[in-house]
Amino acid sequence: MALERGCTQVYTGNGKGKTTAALGLALRAVGRGLKVCVFQFIKGGGPYGEHLIAGKLAPLFTIIQTGQPGWVNTKDISADRRIAQEALVRAGKLLTSGDYDLFICDEINGAAGFGLIDVEQVLELIRMRPEKVELVLTGRNAHELVIEAADLVTEMREIKHYYKAGVPARTGIEM
Amino acid sequence: MALERGCTQVYTGNGKGKTTAALGLALRAVGRGLKVCVFQFIKGGGPYGEHLIAGKLAPLFTIIQTGQPGWVNTKDISADRRIAQEALVRAGKLLTSGDYDLFICDEINGAAGFGLIDVEQVLELIRMRPEKVELVLTGRNAHELVIEAADLVTEMREIKHYYKAGVPARTGIEM
Repeated sequence: MALERGCTQVYTGNGKGKTTAALGLALRAVGRGLKVCVFQFIKGGGPYGEHLIAGKLAPLFTIIQTGQPGWVNTKDISADRRIAQEALVRAGKLLTSGDYDLFICDEINGAAGFGLIDVEQVLELIRMRPEKVELVLTGRNAHELVIEAADLVTEMREIKHYYKAGVPARTGIEM
Repeated sequence: MALERGCTQVYTGNGKGKTTAALGLALRAVGRGLKVCVFQFIKGGGPYGEHLIAGKLAPLFTIIQTGQPGWVNTKDISADRRIAQEALVRAGKLLTSGDYDLFICDEINGAAGFGLIDVEQVLELIRMRPEKVELVLTGRNAHELVIEAADLVTEMREIKHYYKAGVPARTGIEM
């Protein structure tokens, strides 16, 4: 099947649940026979649970990681920017390839926030979205122009987080 | 594998992404070999994408629907309350059965909001959580006592929603 009409969704904010909401969308879409690509920016680490499960959901589910294994080098972003710029070109090609009904750019807002890609490039990606493709952008601090360009925006607001109570990131829950 | 330490998470608010965040957690957890149960209150309709995919993720993924096929009859909640009360007993048994590492009570906040279950019963469920089980509660209008009892709370805040632009619930995205 295919979507009759696609939209652009944004999940932003400082709370837990942005990437997982996108993954849940992916799960539901695959259940309906839609073809899904989760394209991750600044997420070269892992593999995490979402990567380990990919094979079970194939061929409808594809997950692609980009970025260095560690976190962004905020003191010198040049290497991270080069990788993110290449990733963005690749994401644009995949978004418009006709191969996917749901295309998720995970942490693209984070990549923009770090200056690895420009806000105008994110807006260009939104404009490139084919009519019947659903585009989902995640990551905190979504730019106001991205929010303006999107059809749906949810802010995940942290009310309470257990890391403040000393609970570390846990395998199977956070990764 | 099993979790070394479980927590109670709440996803509430009026924005899109609560159930999908829980489903994404489920996907990640299954990828790590954790046993997951998604127990849905007031969701007798469908099947939706998350139900149709269940077989592919079995035996680690179980999804259970409770509630009437339509929406809650707010004029006379007696039938819905009876169903939700039975569901709650069943959820408590499953939560403590040792069969699951991640137990998701989807829309339990909604069920409480409609008066189908009492807030004290939700708190009792939270108290029943075995130490190594992760409990996730979703639904808008989580009671302040539930928020207080939880370890992590994210409010999904609607910034913009496409239903206001006339986009209906779409198969593969909302259901």
